[in-house]
Amino acid sequence: MITVTAKATHAQTRRHNNRLVLKTVYDQGPLSRAAIARSTNLTATTVSTVIAELLADGLVEEIGAIAIERGKPPTLVTLGKDARHIVAVDLSRNYFQASILNLRGEIQAREQLPINGATGEAAVDLIYQLLDEILPLVQKPLLGLGIGAPGIIERNQNLIRHAANLGWENLKLGEQLAARYGLHVQVINDNQAAVLAEFLFGQYKQTPDMVVVRVGNGIGAGIMCNGQLLHGNGAGVGEIGHVMVVENGERCTCGNEGCLETVASSRAVVKRAKAIAQQEFSSYLHQFAPTVDEITIGTVVQAFQAGDPFLQPVVEEVGQHLGRMIANLVTVLGMPRILLCGSVTDFGSPLLEIIRQEVRQRALSGRIHEPQIDMVSLTTNLSDLVIMGAAATLLANELGLFL
Amino acid sequence: MITVTAKATHAQTRRHNNRLVLKTVYDQGPLSRAAIARSTNLTATTVSTVIAELLADGLVEEIGAIAIERGKPPTLVTLGKDARHIVAVDLSRNYFQASILNLRGEIQAREQLPINGATGEAAVDLIYQLLDEILPLVQKPLLGLGIGAPGIIERNQNLIRHAANLGWENLKLGEQLAARYGLHVQVINDNQAAVLAEFLFGQYKQTPDMVVVRVGNGIGAGIMCNGQLLHGNGAGVGEIGHVMVVENGERCTCGNEGCLETVASSRAVVKRAKAIAQQEFSSYLHQFAPTVDEITIGTVVQAFQAGDPFLQPVVEEVGQHLGRMIANLVTVLGMPRILLCGSVTDFGSPLLEIIRQEVRQRALSGRIHEPQIDMVSLTTNLSDLVIMGAAATLLANELGLFL
Repeated sequence: MITVTAKATHAQTRRHNNRLVLKTVYDQGPLSRAAIARSTNLTATTVSTVIAELLADGLVEEIGAIAIERGKPPTLVTLGKDARHIVAVDLSRNYFQASILNLRGEIQAREQLPINGATGEAAVDLIYQLLDEILPLVQKPLLGLGIGAPGIIERNQNLIRHAANLGWENLKLGEQLAARYGLHVQVINDNQAAVLAEFLFGQYKQTPDMVVVRVGNGIGAGIMCNGQLLHGNGAGVGEIGHVMVVENGERCTCGNEGCLETVASSRAVVKRAKAIAQQEFSSYLHQFAPTVDEITIGTVVQAFQAGDPFLQPVVEEVGQHLGRMIANLVTVLGMPRILLCGSVTDFGSPLLEIIRQEVRQRALSGRIHEPQIDMVSLTTNLSDLVIMGAAATLLANELGLFL
Repeated sequence: MITVTAKATHAQTRRHNNRLVLKTVYDQGPLSRAAIARSTNLTATTVSTVIAELLADGLVEEIGAIAIERGKPPTLVTLGKDARHIVAVDLSRNYFQASILNLRGEIQAREQLPINGATGEAAVDLIYQLLDEILPLVQKPLLGLGIGAPGIIERNQNLIRHAANLGWENLKLGEQLAARYGLHVQVINDNQAAVLAEFLFGQYKQTPDMVVVRVGNGIGAGIMCNGQLLHGNGAGVGEIGHVMVVENGERCTCGNEGCLETVASSRAVVKRAKAIAQQEFSSYLHQFAPTVDEITIGTVVQAFQAGDPFLQPVVEEVGQHLGRMIANLVTVLGMPRILLCGSVTDFGSPLLEIIRQEVRQRALSGRIHEPQIDMVSLTTNLSDLVIMGAAATLLANELGLFL
């Protein structure tokens, strides 16, 4: 694949070389200067100059020498992973979380605020409050602010087109935060952030074709194809929760009928569990939730894991619906790797097996390369996952580390 | 989006500059050398050197000067569109077609051979026969051979993993053709070729997010996202015809049940039309196909266009199924532009309107940016479309003109 772009000016060349060396150290370090020169195809002199600049910036550090048989042992250069901090925020759950991360996406601090139903400007005020709390804790030069938000994001404008639960329409969140804090800001959809986190920091990092499917209160996917994040022209992308799967099905929050969310989200599972609890006195649900109103996805998972026979068909149906949708992603996108997260996936291996079985049976391309379906590799804490991905957007945009 | 790659060597820089100038002339020409220098950011000297090489190669030509008020009028440089030929082949229909094209994808000659049910090596022999006929007609230096093939293609290896109708499994077609003819060969899936043709030569060219949906005997999609073709790791991609759309539906050729192909392909339409012809004596089908066995998708289209009332619900159902699938592509991929082709789309505007209506109603992101759904812009001749796309792969790989 050849990308032909305009010829670089001197300043662009220098910036390009700096980014190239930093990326090489980030991906492959610790490395000697000679190894960097070999890997980047830059001259030894250029590498020395660039490394001197990066050392002065603290972005790389020198560590001990490798013992070699003869001659002066070469000094190794490694990432100065704590040279910068990033603050990233997750707005996709029923609380807002802000964290401080280093350049490896390692979380240094967490602050949370409950939303308590706040919407519109009140919800924006909560973000301010959260940032006002966490920003004083930052101890290193700040690369910027990454925001993982639910809903439809116009990426180039850092604009939230539509986020139903928070009551936001065409909210210029990026602009507002940049003006208030004087920081670089990147706003990204929560599911896109999740797949980015796995792409940069996870077990399957640098896998060019990969989907993260999140199954919680809502259902959505972050999709990487050919090593690029699908961003869908600001009109939403990965909205698999709103694909119709039941003809003349239940009315969905989106206004359509029979969407995947109406049968496989935590809302749908809890609704079915409540009906079971009301009808079946021997359901284990009563052990974990004394009253029907206390049933949550957490108590349903507990009752299922305790062996509640009435929940077995519920989990089977959820798995079949999710499996079919994933089979479609595999068939349409030729997707070899799917990673799952979200509260509904707490049903664990039994659910995963139903999904895999369904995909094996239905995905056309699965007959050639069986797609790998697993849980996300980084963390079971969804806010942390979104936050790592939101931080990754800063590494991409400010340091050119990937994408 | 910053792509950081290894530093260019001198030869790479020269090759890069040549490709950059050629691409600039291809996309924007005719241009003066000064305009090329401005557009590419190369020095006037470099542009002159590169243009001299391209002129010697015939890839660009000088045309008359622009009249300017004072001074020597600058000579314009334009693409030498007939400087090279490409031979491309379409294997996706019930005949094989080979064509000679110039660098603008303009078809100079066509040869066809009926397949008559040939499969395996016999079908490969037909390709040889076709190429043996057309290659002597090539009058310009040949850039290479582009093959548009049905089925699942392992792009990097020019390998056909699986093409059911032609009985091919793991056929190293690229290797075999390269060995026999000593030419550069590119093998690409037929639907991917179709979207590539629109991307390089069509009305919506350079549209980075675009899908071509082909609805004929089979149903498939070629998908461009972020300006890149999805190629799906050799496990098939865009196989929307094998997404389940009818619960416990009819058995499909793929082995599953209720696939889109079982309800919306030309096979499915013809099957339903035959049943109508047998039951309804007043169906117009009898005017166009004297016996039930003579009913084809072409006669069904004729009867529908003549106003056959029994075919109205058939077309409605096909449109609804296609519309839902396209709505899913829009919802999952955030796809703003869908182009249709294939024999079933000969139902024309009435079908298109049903599809648009269905997408309007179902696609989540459609509420923000209504996706544009139209017929392909280049040609109604599907073989020509696939051939143009197969030729485009040579322009990409041999001349670096796009992708």
